[in-house]
Amino acid sequence: MSTTTSLFAPPASDYPLDPTYAHRHASAVVTVTGPDGAPLADADVVVEQTNHAFTFGNIGFELIDYINDYEHGASDMATTRPGRELVDADRKYDAAFAEKWLALHNAATLPFYWGRFEPEEGRPRTQEYLRAARWFAERGVALKGHPLVWHTVQPQWLLGKPVDEVERLQRQRIRRDVGDFAGLVDTWDAINEVVIMPVFTAEENGITPLARVKGRVEMIRLAFEEARAVNPSVKLLLNDFDMSTAYECLIEAVLEAGIEIDYLGLQSHQHQGYWGLEKTQRILDRFARYNLPIHFTETTLLSGEIMPDHIVDLNDWQVTAEQWPSTPEGEARQADELEEFVRTLVAHPLVEAFIYWGLGDRGMWLNAPGGLLRRDGTAKPAYDRYLGLVKDEWWVAPHTVRTSATGEVTIEGFRGTYRVTAPDGRATEVTLA
Amino acid sequence: MSTTTSLFAPPASDYPLDPTYAHRHASAVVTVTGPDGAPLADADVVVEQTNHAFTFGNIGFELIDYINDYEHGASDMATTRPGRELVDADRKYDAAFAEKWLALHNAATLPFYWGRFEPEEGRPRTQEYLRAARWFAERGVALKGHPLVWHTVQPQWLLGKPVDEVERLQRQRIRRDVGDFAGLVDTWDAINEVVIMPVFTAEENGITPLARVKGRVEMIRLAFEEARAVNPSVKLLLNDFDMSTAYECLIEAVLEAGIEIDYLGLQSHQHQGYWGLEKTQRILDRFARYNLPIHFTETTLLSGEIMPDHIVDLNDWQVTAEQWPSTPEGEARQADELEEFVRTLVAHPLVEAFIYWGLGDRGMWLNAPGGLLRRDGTAKPAYDRYLGLVKDEWWVAPHTVRTSATGEVTIEGFRGTYRVTAPDGRATEVTLA
Repeated sequence: MSTTTSLFAPPASDYPLDPTYAHRHASAVVTVTGPDGAPLADADVVVEQTNHAFTFGNIGFELIDYINDYEHGASDMATTRPGRELVDADRKYDAAFAEKWLALHNAATLPFYWGRFEPEEGRPRTQEYLRAARWFAERGVALKGHPLVWHTVQPQWLLGKPVDEVERLQRQRIRRDVGDFAGLVDTWDAINEVVIMPVFTAEENGITPLARVKGRVEMIRLAFEEARAVNPSVKLLLNDFDMSTAYECLIEAVLEAGIEIDYLGLQSHQHQGYWGLEKTQRILDRFARYNLPIHFTETTLLSGEIMPDHIVDLNDWQVTAEQWPSTPEGEARQADELEEFVRTLVAHPLVEAFIYWGLGDRGMWLNAPGGLLRRDGTAKPAYDRYLGLVKDEWWVAPHTVRTSATGEVTIEGFRGTYRVTAPDGRATEVTLA
Repeated sequence: MSTTTSLFAPPASDYPLDPTYAHRHASAVVTVTGPDGAPLADADVVVEQTNHAFTFGNIGFELIDYINDYEHGASDMATTRPGRELVDADRKYDAAFAEKWLALHNAATLPFYWGRFEPEEGRPRTQEYLRAARWFAERGVALKGHPLVWHTVQPQWLLGKPVDEVERLQRQRIRRDVGDFAGLVDTWDAINEVVIMPVFTAEENGITPLARVKGRVEMIRLAFEEARAVNPSVKLLLNDFDMSTAYECLIEAVLEAGIEIDYLGLQSHQHQGYWGLEKTQRILDRFARYNLPIHFTETTLLSGEIMPDHIVDLNDWQVTAEQWPSTPEGEARQADELEEFVRTLVAHPLVEAFIYWGLGDRGMWLNAPGGLLRRDGTAKPAYDRYLGLVKDEWWVAPHTVRTSATGEVTIEGFRGTYRVTAPDGRATEVTLA
């Protein structure tokens, strides 16, 4: 018996796209003062944007090794790069990669796959990941852990344990990791792909039997309640690739059960072809009904051949990177698709995050040519096009403004943080919220 | 704020099919007594089965006109038969049809589509339907109303009303009809096709906007709570055609919300080809997880050409009956498929009902050759094959048994009701439960 308050809210009548991005803009009047505290009239100050409120993220998987100075081995199988022979060569690639990564993004998703984070029971890679998390945080990058509960990439040592024991270990794992990373990682994909979780058959794992016994809603409750128990201010996502009515039904079940979803996570791996405007809008319309902030948590767009339609589980497409090259036509198409997709998401009032799934073609999931950088580290057109939106069209570059007779300047632009630097070098941070 | 007890129960470890149907069998020892009340030793009594506990049902739509002596016009659009010119000709067809209907079935689904049951606001066809319901009940046929809430076949007069008013009218309609038919119709498809209900776009209707505003779970709660309010012993189904994980997620939401489902309704219109054993078993496995009695509520198997795969909404396939004939090869195939399908369902311990969707090809949904009788009323092989199972292989025909020295006979067979008739004609009803 539980007392619940349904969190289902009737949908707003409409959430139209606004291609002028008016909902993304804000302005503020700031009074610049001198060292004496008096308004600084008729002075030239430099105004510049320092961050976006909107999340332009990517996975940070590939950088964990680099950040840890390669001392801890490959932190994740996704970083096992074909052709990697000398750490020195990687060091150079990785340094350039890191620079390009930081130039574009303000948020990183870190890979907390249980089976890789704790391949040996009781020996989690906490220190290695803390180092990586601090590196990002020091560079102004927000962090998200992915995922606390999932049925794949599971520890082998979990297999064969009774479901009660699996539940105990799963709960303990959530508390440990959310607790250890609190203050650095305060956003988590609490649970991943629950629609398929209890009927997943592709791979034996410890979690599917638990999901069958508990049911989907209680699996979700488990993830959310354990995370909030150790970090009450944590932000939690429900995340899925299933964009059908199944996910809607699950979301309604979760809201009805009184489980608070902070952000609704929608994956958008488009290995089988770009969704296009119409499908993207239809999906936005359907999931905006829940009046929840929406995160596009995992996006892939290819710059090479498209995966055939008949593949149902993308993991079944097994090719080498050499068999799946990035092509000039593919790169031109990817840039167009990425631009249209990002513009569409940014134009939607409920979308708060766009997180791409891999910056470079090296070590990309499924060996797909879905990176924004080629295997040699050079930028594909999509990288430049996307960077042009995030750091040019939607960005306020440093420029000189003259304060008024009362020392005021008006700052106007995409919501985010801005810096105003007085002639004597004193800087003030301003947030356009 | 509501206090709920989740009704989700962990699945039984397994529900294997039993092709021996042992779970369907029961036996009882009955003492036959004489007029003086003393055991009737060494007497020849006649034992015969009179009904099945298992529901072998069909829609009773076509018979409403006939039962009402054609005095009330076509009670339902489904009964508008092409080529119908003289009532006399129909009377003959219908009389023979009724006989074949009753020879096979022990349950009828009646069409309470709101838009046809009450085409003019405030003038429901209650009397006409009560007459039909009584006709079936007098012949030992159990009744189910279909459906209390749905988004299609809606009254035109509901369009344009505000959602609050639609909700009030929908609630009132449920109370009225469940109340008016209590004692005759005590089983209802409470709500139909909720998975698609709030995102249904094929046809403007009053219910979809209500479902969007309330959410799926509260729409279901509305239907269940209104029906139970007027008839506490009513049995209610959740019914859907969506056999994907979407329906699983919805069921889990409903159980989690503490809404009691009496029978889980699975549609199985197989216009695009017979599911086959493997798919049927997979669906049974998935939906048996909820430990609920399962009703196959709407089954169609064709004896003609199969509808192409690319049709998503079956209603989009618009052909005349002449364009879609029953064929000899199709009829042979249909008989095989129907036999395999029914045997599979009866072999599953949780299935309690198999309800076919139309006995005759005249007036079949979509003009499909899915009946078990041809347009001229003669039996297709599927009718004979199915009748052979229900009233022969799985049936105890009248036969003479000698009572023991203590007046006992053992009755053994499929669960259901049996009659024991003594030499002097006195009969006793026995239930094998």
